[in-house]
Amino acid sequence: MIRAAIVGYGNLGKAAAAIINQTPDITLTAIFSRRQLTDLPAPVYPLSTIAQHRSDYDILLLCLGSATDIPKHGPELLALAPTIDVYDNHSSIATHRQHLDQIAKKHHTVAITAVGWDPGLFSLQRLMAQAILPDAQTSTFWGKGVSQGHSDAIRRIPGVQHAVQYTIPNPEALQAAACGKAQDYPPQTRHIRQCYVVCETCEQKRIQDAIITMPDYFQGYHTTVEFITKETYLAQHQAMPHGGTVIASGTTAGEHQTIEYNLHLDSNPHFTAAVMIAYSRAAHRLQTERRHGAYTILDIPPTYLSPLTPEQLYQQL
Amino acid sequence: MIRAAIVGYGNLGKAAAAIINQTPDITLTAIFSRRQLTDLPAPVYPLSTIAQHRSDYDILLLCLGSATDIPKHGPELLALAPTIDVYDNHSSIATHRQHLDQIAKKHHTVAITAVGWDPGLFSLQRLMAQAILPDAQTSTFWGKGVSQGHSDAIRRIPGVQHAVQYTIPNPEALQAAACGKAQDYPPQTRHIRQCYVVCETCEQKRIQDAIITMPDYFQGYHTTVEFITKETYLAQHQAMPHGGTVIASGTTAGEHQTIEYNLHLDSNPHFTAAVMIAYSRAAHRLQTERRHGAYTILDIPPTYLSPLTPEQLYQQL
Repeated sequence: MIRAAIVGYGNLGKAAAAIINQTPDITLTAIFSRRQLTDLPAPVYPLSTIAQHRSDYDILLLCLGSATDIPKHGPELLALAPTIDVYDNHSSIATHRQHLDQIAKKHHTVAITAVGWDPGLFSLQRLMAQAILPDAQTSTFWGKGVSQGHSDAIRRIPGVQHAVQYTIPNPEALQAAACGKAQDYPPQTRHIRQCYVVCETCEQKRIQDAIITMPDYFQGYHTTVEFITKETYLAQHQAMPHGGTVIASGTTAGEHQTIEYNLHLDSNPHFTAAVMIAYSRAAHRLQTERRHGAYTILDIPPTYLSPLTPEQLYQQL
Repeated sequence: MIRAAIVGYGNLGKAAAAIINQTPDITLTAIFSRRQLTDLPAPVYPLSTIAQHRSDYDILLLCLGSATDIPKHGPELLALAPTIDVYDNHSSIATHRQHLDQIAKKHHTVAITAVGWDPGLFSLQRLMAQAILPDAQTSTFWGKGVSQGHSDAIRRIPGVQHAVQYTIPNPEALQAAACGKAQDYPPQTRHIRQCYVVCETCEQKRIQDAIITMPDYFQGYHTTVEFITKETYLAQHQAMPHGGTVIASGTTAGEHQTIEYNLHLDSNPHFTAAVMIAYSRAAHRLQTERRHGAYTILDIPPTYLSPLTPEQLYQQL
């Protein structure tokens, strides 16, 4: 039984707690938070006391944001115990991993960083497709899913009461990518931006114009805007679905081959938490083997994710 | 540069030679065959001389059949050099790997066994989906692709001149699996069996009846039979397409999540050879690290498949 503690109790931390509760080989022994929380599925302690409670947990699930929390707290926490983080700042992952690697080797711990689906499982699919089909064109599509940044941009328009933006792959671009013709669709044409907005009726025309002409966010994209009531917004647009597709299209000595990986997620934070929990088995096993250092999803042997032994997995192979 | 030799020069060996020719970091230095062959892309030697030529290659790609050749020659060849094989007898993989593991440890070599897409990449997807979504229902569909066994069964019916059978996933069963309702479709209803037959016109009725009532192969399946001319057969039914889908449908604390992995292959032997070549990088690296033993796709860290270094891969992550 692996004893896990959760650090940070936002959407991701809540999802992790709920999923560990369904996971027979992992038990949740503590939640560390900066906020005062009650009535949670495990004892809650202030984040500042995490070192005092070191004997209560084997691994730490860092359910923290990438902007400041993971860079700041990740290294400190890794000095204490094996960590799994969801660092998703693509351009800094290599540097972040290297920094964690030094700390892990010094303090004899293990980090698995940039865990999730993109970066994460999608990165793994891209690596494998390119290793198998060396001339592969690999395209990634996101959605249907909520884009938090685009939803926020709409909400900043004066007069907008509520808003959500879904990113949806353009089905024609998906089809083209599967046929090795991804280049026919420049980046702006690969996705559709679907906006649902709550505002006063007399404001609709102005707000619609403000959205579709907004530079960087919507201008040049295929954007649809639909005005809905507050009741519809609250009833139908509170979920956090997401997903996406990695398509690799290549040839092997002239023969066309396509590899496609799809995720359809009713809850983005739940799925990310589930991936963290699978990789926490790997972190615990690497720690037990004293293979100290910082790893990404690309470095981990797949058998390390499973609660079953390699022999059991070969039987099922 | 990895120096590879091919053992066996049927469809798979030919595909491997053609693909290595397009692979910058691997060079083909020898082909070993029991047959007398000329005009090939590398020097050809009798299989019996493989030990004499040991200084010519770093790894052996065993492009041999699973029925007798791999069990017979795999262990002998592994005593000489690192091997990659496509052993696909699902029920014996665990035993075969264990046997190879003893030989590899004794002779200080490395084997990667059961390489390909099923068993192989599909096994990997099943393992990962089940590790991430512990309650996942995982379903595998094959096709569109030629079933060699079913095509042979039709050809054995008296009067049949040529025949090919394609297995095609039932689209309704695929849809149900994505929604977590795979159990609504018993195994016989998950695939459609599409037969193309060349015979005399007066024999068509008898042959059609013989096909659709054939026990084990077609009876109880959704089977279609179409009679075609020899010219159409030769023009349109000589390719070896295949592919398939692994669908895992599960929940994370009540939220539905679906993971789907698809292969659309214009040439089955080409794709299998491409997977072998990617894993030959891993075999060579494990050998260099002196991590002697027998591995499956489930045991290999993904970075080992790529010609790029881990640091380069983190940058791309």
